[in-house]
Amino acid sequence: MKELRNLQETIHRELQQIVIANKPDRLYEPISYTLSLGGKRLRPALCLAACEMFGGNQEEAFNAAIGLEIFHNFTLLHDDIMDESPMRRGQIAVHKKWNRNIAILSGDTMFGLAYQYIGKTTPDKLPKVLNTFTTTAIEVCEGQQYDMDFESQNDVFLSDYLKMIRLKTAVLLAGSLKIGALIAGSSDEEAEKIYKFGENLGMAFQLKMICWMLMPMKPIWQEKGNDIVTNKKPICCSKPSKRQPVTKSADLSTFFLRPTKLRQTKKFRKVLGLFDKLDIRSDTLETIQAYQQKAISYLESIAVADTAKTVMYKILEYLNDREV
Amino acid sequence: MKELRNLQETIHRELQQIVIANKPDRLYEPISYTLSLGGKRLRPALCLAACEMFGGNQEEAFNAAIGLEIFHNFTLLHDDIMDESPMRRGQIAVHKKWNRNIAILSGDTMFGLAYQYIGKTTPDKLPKVLNTFTTTAIEVCEGQQYDMDFESQNDVFLSDYLKMIRLKTAVLLAGSLKIGALIAGSSDEEAEKIYKFGENLGMAFQLKMICWMLMPMKPIWQEKGNDIVTNKKPICCSKPSKRQPVTKSADLSTFFLRPTKLRQTKKFRKVLGLFDKLDIRSDTLETIQAYQQKAISYLESIAVADTAKTVMYKILEYLNDREV
Repeated sequence: MKELRNLQETIHRELQQIVIANKPDRLYEPISYTLSLGGKRLRPALCLAACEMFGGNQEEAFNAAIGLEIFHNFTLLHDDIMDESPMRRGQIAVHKKWNRNIAILSGDTMFGLAYQYIGKTTPDKLPKVLNTFTTTAIEVCEGQQYDMDFESQNDVFLSDYLKMIRLKTAVLLAGSLKIGALIAGSSDEEAEKIYKFGENLGMAFQLKMICWMLMPMKPIWQEKGNDIVTNKKPICCSKPSKRQPVTKSADLSTFFLRPTKLRQTKKFRKVLGLFDKLDIRSDTLETIQAYQQKAISYLESIAVADTAKTVMYKILEYLNDREV
Repeated sequence: MKELRNLQETIHRELQQIVIANKPDRLYEPISYTLSLGGKRLRPALCLAACEMFGGNQEEAFNAAIGLEIFHNFTLLHDDIMDESPMRRGQIAVHKKWNRNIAILSGDTMFGLAYQYIGKTTPDKLPKVLNTFTTTAIEVCEGQQYDMDFESQNDVFLSDYLKMIRLKTAVLLAGSLKIGALIAGSSDEEAEKIYKFGENLGMAFQLKMICWMLMPMKPIWQEKGNDIVTNKKPICCSKPSKRQPVTKSADLSTFFLRPTKLRQTKKFRKVLGLFDKLDIRSDTLETIQAYQQKAISYLESIAVADTAKTVMYKILEYLNDREV
């Protein structure tokens, strides 16, 4: 998967080179810190890959790709405040390292900076790119609100849970691909197909992340376990057609209905035990495969040469390789 | 000042008509609430007035005008969280009526909605309009950071204080005018002149607001007094040329250096007493006049018929009418 890795590295270098020497320091230092924390740089890589797939010049999509990554990091920064997560990518979260107000305002500024990069798109492509980006940005906020709403809901239906994942995660992957396609000059119809490919890819990817988090004793769990502690519901049980509330099991809802006095580690292990008992992981793996199949169908339907699609198949593989 | 009032009313009606029936409710209800709280609708009115002054069709600038007002209300919403202000326009602030997380996320969404309206600008004008809007939005964040920084600084130099006001308030008024001009198809040079007019107008306007707040016993003081209670420095003493720290007076800095145990009302009255003793109000009135003069010079230098400038002179008058 050399191509994807090369793209990710180029983006990473560029983000680290954005020396934000602007003033005031207390606004821009947290931004530089956030952008230097790393990550997969998946969204900008998807944007550049889609641009190339549709025969465009990757350089033309570069600023938009950077904007997408800055936006993604802004959402993580504000999510960490809202979720009271103390850590991000193994480092102290901005709202803990500085303070909450600085985290709010640095995030707002990053949202603006993201638009500064999106705004550098060539004028003839700008209206559609901007519209796609803004629609996506608003949807990501809606997804985060659903996620927060679920914390205080007794039952969460699987369809609502999947909608939340779609808004909070999948649409930004989809939007990144669509923006790359639009910059390459694709038709609206083809741009919509790569969007749907990304949306299904994103659903599969996020559900896979969740399955992976459900494996006990992963080194990451102390950070991610926080979701369970704060009553987030990283749960995907039963098949979509059943429309069961994801917390229907009396045992499971015990943990989410009432504040529990259990220590974090104990709560986490108990919840994982219940996931195993309810066989949530294998049900979720089926759902993941369905989304992957849909993604492949959309990719196949796109009217470009198969050779141009290679990178997208490799991205599917790359995301598939994650052990669950 | 019929023209301005008409513009303000049109904008106000439109904002109330934006029935944001989107889901999730807990994200969009605070947005509808915020947009219905009223206010002068000054920024959109300036945008429409500038568009007309440069011979443009106001309808073309209407979406951008709405976007500017949504952005302004977003900044107020997030500022209220950061400043812990319980009230906004005489009503309960969003972070108190709902909660802090909802206020953060509703604000983020409003920032996105603002771009949704800005993005409706006709494609040929969009790149410059978007660039002006984004630059302004980032500067407003910088201004808020300086304002927060000042809370824990012992001395604040007048030049820094004025820079903070410029970023936090004046640039958005200036940007609103420039966006209106750009949509009308003005040259970059003329757009820059109306921007400078707005920047100076904005400085005068904000300093006037501050002076007005310094008058004891205004019904508004219980809300605005909060600035003083939280160690904000709504202080403008001495003439700009002197570059004195605005809290040089030993008496004044007493209030800002150390947390005080004084009750809010008492602290507020004591600070106002010191402002009087230091004759801050009359010094500030001189500064205001200087900014107004600069504003007029820029307006005079713009190459459109004097009759087209009437509305701008009336806006100057309107802002001047505020009793200090």
